Amino acid sequence: MKRIGETGWIEKEKPKCGPLDALVRPIAISPCSSDVHTVWKGALGNRHDMILGHEAVGEVIEVGEYVRDFRPGDRVVVPAITPDWNSLEAQGGYSMHSGGMLSGWKFSNFKDGVFAECFHVNDADGNMAHLPEGVSPEAAVMLCDMIPTGFHGAELAEVEYGDTVCVIGIGPVGLMSVAGSALRGASRIMAVGSRPDCIKIAGEYGATDIINYRNGSILEQAMKLTENKGVDRVIIAGGDNDTFIDAVKMLKPGGKIGNVNYLGEGEYIRIPRTDWGNGMGHKTIAGGLMPGGRRRVEKLASLIKYGKLDPEKMLTHRFEGFGHIEEALLLMKDKPKDLIKPVVTIK
Amino acid sequence: MKRIGETGWIEKEKPKCGPLDALVRPIAISPCSSDVHTVWKGALGNRHDMILGHEAVGEVIEVGEYVRDFRPGDRVVVPAITPDWNSLEAQGGYSMHSGGMLSGWKFSNFKDGVFAECFHVNDADGNMAHLPEGVSPEAAVMLCDMIPTGFHGAELAEVEYGDTVCVIGIGPVGLMSVAGSALRGASRIMAVGSRPDCIKIAGEYGATDIINYRNGSILEQAMKLTENKGVDRVIIAGGDNDTFIDAVKMLKPGGKIGNVNYLGEGEYIRIPRTDWGNGMGHKTIAGGLMPGGRRRVEKLASLIKYGKLDPEKMLTHRFEGFGHIEEALLLMKDKPKDLIKPVVTIK
Amino acid sequence: MKRIGETGWIEKEKPKCGPLDALVRPIAISPCSSDVHTVWKGALGNRHDMILGHEAVGEVIEVGEYVRDFRPGDRVVVPAITPDWNSLEAQGGYSMHSGGMLSGWKFSNFKDGVFAECFHVNDADGNMAHLPEGVSPEAAVMLCDMIPTGFHGAELAEVEYGDTVCVIGIGPVGLMSVAGSALRGASRIMAVGSRPDCIKIAGEYGATDIINYRNGSILEQAMKLTENKGVDRVIIAGGDNDTFIDAVKMLKPGGKIGNVNYLGEGEYIRIPRTDWGNGMGHKTIAGGLMPGGRRRVEKLASLIKYGKLDPEKMLTHRFEGFGHIEEALLLMKDKPKDLIKPVVTIK
Amino acid sequence: MKRIGETGWIEKEKPKCGPLDALVRPIAISPCSSDVHTVWKGALGNRHDMILGHEAVGEVIEVGEYVRDFRPGDRVVVPAITPDWNSLEAQGGYSMHSGGMLSGWKFSNFKDGVFAECFHVNDADGNMAHLPEGVSPEAAVMLCDMIPTGFHGAELAEVEYGDTVCVIGIGPVGLMSVAGSALRGASRIMAVGSRPDCIKIAGEYGATDIINYRNGSILEQAMKLTENKGVDRVIIAGGDNDTFIDAVKMLKPGGKIGNVNYLGEGEYIRIPRTDWGNGMGHKTIAGGLMPGGRRRVEKLASLIKYGKLDPEKMLTHRFEGFGHIEEALLLMKDKPKDLIKPVVTIK
Repeated sequence: MKRIGETGWIEKEKPKCGPLDALVRPIAISPCSSDVHTVWKGALGNRHDMILGHEAVGEVIEVGEYVRDFRPGDRVVVPAITPDWNSLEAQGGYSMHSGGMLSGWKFSNFKDGVFAECFHVNDADGNMAHLPEGVSPEAAVMLCDMIPTGFHGAELAEVEYGDTVCVIGIGPVGLMSVAGSALRGASRIMAVGSRPDCIKIAGEYGATDIINYRNGSILEQAMKLTENKGVDRVIIAGGDNDTFIDAVKMLKPGGKIGNVNYLGEGEYIRIPRTDWGNGMGHKTIAGGLMPGGRRRVEKLASLIKYGKLDPEKMLTHRFEGFGHIEEALLLMKDKPKDLIKPVVTIK
Repeated sequence: MKRIGETGWIEKEKPKCGPLDALVRPIAISPCSSDVHTVWKGALGNRHDMILGHEAVGEVIEVGEYVRDFRPGDRVVVPAITPDWNSLEAQGGYSMHSGGMLSGWKFSNFKDGVFAECFHVNDADGNMAHLPEGVSPEAAVMLCDMIPTGFHGAELAEVEYGDTVCVIGIGPVGLMSVAGSALRGASRIMAVGSRPDCIKIAGEYGATDIINYRNGSILEQAMKLTENKGVDRVIIAGGDNDTFIDAVKMLKPGGKIGNVNYLGEGEYIRIPRTDWGNGMGHKTIAGGLMPGGRRRVEKLASLIKYGKLDPEKMLTHRFEGFGHIEEALLLMKDKPKDLIKPVVTIK
Repeated sequence: MKRIGETGWIEKEKPKCGPLDALVRPIAISPCSSDVHTVWKGALGNRHDMILGHEAVGEVIEVGEYVRDFRPGDRVVVPAITPDWNSLEAQGGYSMHSGGMLSGWKFSNFKDGVFAECFHVNDADGNMAHLPEGVSPEAAVMLCDMIPTGFHGAELAEVEYGDTVCVIGIGPVGLMSVAGSALRGASRIMAVGSRPDCIKIAGEYGATDIINYRNGSILEQAMKLTENKGVDRVIIAGGDNDTFIDAVKMLKPGGKIGNVNYLGEGEYIRIPRTDWGNGMGHKTIAGGLMPGGRRRVEKLASLIKYGKLDPEKMLTHRFEGFGHIEEALLLMKDKPKDLIKPVVTIK
Repeated sequence: MKRIGETGWIEKEKPKCGPLDALVRPIAISPCSSDVHTVWKGALGNRHDMILGHEAVGEVIEVGEYVRDFRPGDRVVVPAITPDWNSLEAQGGYSMHSGGMLSGWKFSNFKDGVFAECFHVNDADGNMAHLPEGVSPEAAVMLCDMIPTGFHGAELAEVEYGDTVCVIGIGPVGLMSVAGSALRGASRIMAVGSRPDCIKIAGEYGATDIINYRNGSILEQAMKLTENKGVDRVIIAGGDNDTFIDAVKMLKPGGKIGNVNYLGEGEYIRIPRTDWGNGMGHKTIAGGLMPGGRRRVEKLASLIKYGKLDPEKMLTHRFEGFGHIEEALLLMKDKPKDLIKPVVTIK
C-alpha cells in the first residue's frame, strides 16, 4: 500500500529482530477483505508505504536470543493478532486489546504486514505456532484470521447444544462461524447469503437453512422458518450497522448476538428499543476482535489435524509465486462470483 | 389506575385462588416509578381499572390445595416478578421472560397489582418467601423490586474484585446497584446523580466518587477521574436512551454494561461505532429484567438478615394505613427533593 | 422388580393423574444399566414391587385439567429426570436435585417406572416434549437418558474448541460423551474401551484414538499419546472409584473432570494429592446427574432432527412388543459382546 | 534456609538483571506459613542455601533495558506468583501454572526469595505494581499472598449474592477468604477456628457465625446452624486432607468447594461417595494456586485504596529492621496465641 487507493511494490529494509522476536519468510499467504478496506476505503486512516497482509504461514529465518521454542528453518503459523502478553489487558483475558483497544492487531495496521519477503513477529514464543504435521500451509493460513474470527463469533454468541443460530454473512469468516456453531453444538443453523458457491459450502459446514436476502427481508424469513419463535443466537459476519436491527428483532429473550464483522462506517449502531425489551429483554450484544497468540492457533490447528475441520473447502483460487500477491489482492477487491478465498503459496 | 392519567379507588371482586396459588393481604407496600410511568405516561399502553403496585409484603389469607409451604397467617415477601417456573424460558435460566419477553412481570402489568385489600399470587410455593425473623416488613418490601433490580445491574455488568464501576442514576434502584457493586467486590464506585440525599446515601452504600451531571458532561468527569483510562463496568439505572453513548465511551475494552433502566420512549438506543471498537472492542451490552421468584428473595433477604445490607436507609417517607397509598404514589410522581422511597405499612 | 434380585410382571392400579400431570402409554422403551444395578445390585436399597424403567417415548392417554400443551394421542418423549420446577433447587439451576439431592430422578427410584402399560408424568407441560417430526421413536428414546447424560459429561468438563479429551468408558453413555465432546469442539478425543463394536462406533462419533485397557495402564497410554503433556479434559463414563486417580494424573493444570458415571459402591473416591498440585493445581472435579425436563429434551432432539447426531447407531438390538421388555432387560444384565443398547417398540 | 531444618544468613552474589527484569530492595516483608513448611517440613524437598520469602514490597534498584513502566526508586508490590506471561498456560488463563503445574511460583521455590538485600523479579512490567498512594507498605505486603490467596478461595467457590459460606481455617489466608466472601456478596459466613484474636477479626471481616472445632464436630455444628440444610459454598483455608470429607458432607447439591490450603502430606484426599451423590451431586471440587502478576495486584490494591478492605487488622506483630526477619520467621513457626501475621519494615 502506497497510499489510500494505491498499491504497488516497494523496497524496505529488513526489519530488526529483537531478543524475543523472529523474522519469517512467508510460504503461504492470503489477502483479506480488511486489506481491501485498508487500501481502498482508508478504513484505518491514511498509511504511507505500509506493507499489507496479516495472514501468513512461513519459515523462520532468524530468532532473537531469548526465543526458546523456534529455530531458523521451522515452519510456523503466525496469527493476525500478536499481543503483548504481559500487558494488563492480556492478563485480564483481552490480549487482543493489549496496549489499547484493538492494539493486539499490529500487522498492516501500525506495523508492516506479511506480504513481504520477510516479516517481523513480536514475542515469537508467544505468537507463533509450529505448523503441525499433516496440515498443509494452505489450510494453515486460514488459522491466521478466518477460522479464529469466525469461531469467535460462535464464542461471543455463546452457542450451546441444540441452539438455533442465524449466521448473517457467509463470506469466509461467516462460513467459519457456521462451522464454529456446528462445533459448539448448534442444531439448526440458518445462513444468510446469496452466492451459490458460498451456499453450497455453508451446507457442508453445517448450515441447515439458507436465507437469501435477495428473496426478501432476512427478518421475515428467519421468523417464518422458526414459526415466529425467533432464534437463540445471531452471529453477525457481514452486513452493516443496520444488521443489528434485524438481529435484535429475530432474537429470543435470553438470546445473544456475537459480532465479528468489522464495522467500517456510520456513526452509530442502532438497537431497536421495544424489541430489545425496553432495555430489559436479556438480549446481550457482544462484539470483539479475534483472540490471537500461539495457544489459540495450536488449539484451532488441532481441529484440522484431527479431521474435525477442513478449511481448504474455502480456497477457491490458488496461486503459486510471490508475484501473484497483488493479483490475489485485486481478486479480493473485485470479488468475482465464484471467489471465496484465494491463497498464494511461495516456494 | 382508572385509565391513563387517572387514579382512584375501585371495587373489584376478590380474585380466585387456584390450586397452586395464594391470596395475600398487604402489610407493607411501596409505589415504584414504573407505577408512575404506567399511569401518567401510559408506558404499557392503556389499562382500564387495573390495580397498580408490585411491591408488597403481606399476610397470607388463603392458599390453594397443592400449596405445601405456606399457610394462612404466614407473613410473606412477594417479588414483583412471579414466573411460571415450568416454562421453557424458566428452564433455560430466564424465568422473567416465562411465556414471552418480560411476561414474568404480571402485577400491574397484565393482572391486578398489590395496592388492594387482597391480591393474587400465582404458584405460591415458587413465588413467595417467608418474611425472615429480624427483617422488618418495611425493609423487606425493598426485596420486591429495588434490591433485586439494582443488584441485577451489577450481575449483568459482571462486576469483579477491584473493578472501577460507574453507576448512572442513584434513585433507589441505582443506590442498590451501588450497594450491589460493593457486594461484588468493586473498589471504586462512581455514582452519577445530583440530589444531596441520594449522594449522601450513595456514599454509605459504597460510592467513592460522585459525578454530578449538573457540573458538566458525565463522560468528561468519568474520564478525568480515571486519568483517561475509563472504567471497567457501567451500570445504567437512570438516564435515557442516549446514556448508552456515554457508557460505551467511558468503558475500557473488555468492559461490560449492565442496564436495569426501563427505557420508556424513543425508537432506538444508539451505540457509537468507533468507541465500540468498530464492532470489535469487546464492550458487551446487556440489559434485563430482575430475576424473581422465591429463591431470589430468600437469598437477598439473607443479606439483610445477616447485616450485610440495610435497605431502610432509602426509606425517606413512611406512612401508616391503607388510605395513604395514593398519597405515596403521588409523592413518587412529584419527586420532592428529599424523597428516595416511600413505604406504607398497613396493620 | 419384585425385590432385589427378582424381576417379573405384576398388576398395579392405573396411576392417578393430577391436574398438572399426564398418563402415558409407552411406544418405545429401553432398559438402562441403572435398572440392572437397581434390581441385581440393590443400588438404591430394597424396593418392593416397583416398576422399573426410565427411558420411554409414548402416547399421551390422559392429561390433567391445567395441562396446556399436550392432548391425548400426542406422541411424547419423557426424560428420565422430571423435576419440580418451582423448587428452590430448580430456581437455582439444579433442577435434577429438586426436593433433595438426586430427587429429580423419580421413575423407578421412588415412584413406578415406565415399563408398564401406562405411566405417570408429573408436571406434563414442564417434563414432556413432543416427538418431533422426522425423529423415530427408537432414536428419541435415547433422549431420555443416554444423550443428556453423555452430553452432560462434556458440559461438566467444559470442553472447548481444540481440546484433547479423554472419555473413559464407551458404553452408550460414554459414546454420547464422545459425540458430545465432538459437538463442543474437541479436536482429539481418546476413548477408553475394549469392545470392538463400541470402538467402531466411537470412531464414528468422533473418537480419534482408542485406549484399550486390556493393553496396559490407561494412564500410561494417555500420557504416551500426548507425549507426556496430558489431556485438557477427562469425562468419566465408566470404571469405578479409582478411575479418578488416573483421571487426575492425566489432566493438565487448569483441566477439568466431568463425571457422569453412577458410583455404586465403595466409601471414598480418592484424589492423588501431589498430582492434584497439593490442592493447588486447578484440576476441577465435577460430577452430576443429567438435567431433565422439557426444554433439555427439545434442545437435544433438535440435534437429531437437523442431522447433527444419529443415536440409532447405538441400537444394536431391536425388539417389538411389550412382552420383550424383560428379555431386553436381561440382555442389559448379561451384556453380550455385541450389545450396545437394546430398544423395544410397542404398537 | 541452609537446608531442611536450618535457617541462617548467607552471602550471595547480587542476581543478574535481564532485559525485562528488575532488581528490588525490600522495604516491607512478611514470612508465610509456607516458608515454615519449606524449611522445617521440607515440603518442597531439600533446598540448599536458598533464600526464603515471597511476600515483599520494595524499592526498585535496577531495571532491564526493555522495562517500560518502572524506574529505580519506584516503590513496588511484588506478588508471590510471577508468571511467564507468554506461556501457553498463561494464554489459557492459568498463569500460575506457566511452565508446568505451580511453576508460576518461583520465589523461595526454585529461585531465591525476597528475604535479601536485593531480589530479582522476572518480567518487571508484567509482575510488579506501583505501590498506590495512600496504601502503606505494611498493608501492601498482604497483597503478595494473603489477600490474593484468600480471595481466590471465594473465586474458586464461586460465591454469589446471599450465599451461606463456610470458611474452614481463619489464619491470615482464611481471614481473607472471609473478607473475600463478604465482598462477593455472601450473607452468612461461618468461620471455623478457635483462637480468640482470629475469631474477633473474622467477625470484623464479615463472619456471622463461629464454629470452634474444640466444641465438637465441624460438620455437626454447621448442619445445626443451618437446620440441616447445609451450606452453599465451602472455602478450605486450613485443616488437612480429611477436611474435604466434612466439606462435601455439609455442602448442598449444586454447591462448590474452593481449596486454597496447601496440602503438604498424605497420599490421597478422600471424597465420601454417597455424600457426593454417588458422583452425581453437582458438588464441584476446585483448588488452585493464587493468580499473580501485576494486574491482579493492582485490582486488589484498589480495594485497600478505596477503603473496601483493611488488611492491617491482621498485622499483630510489627518489626523494624532487616535483622528482625529471622525473628519474624520463627514467630510464624512457633505461632504464639496472639499471632496472626507479622511484618518487618526496612528503611
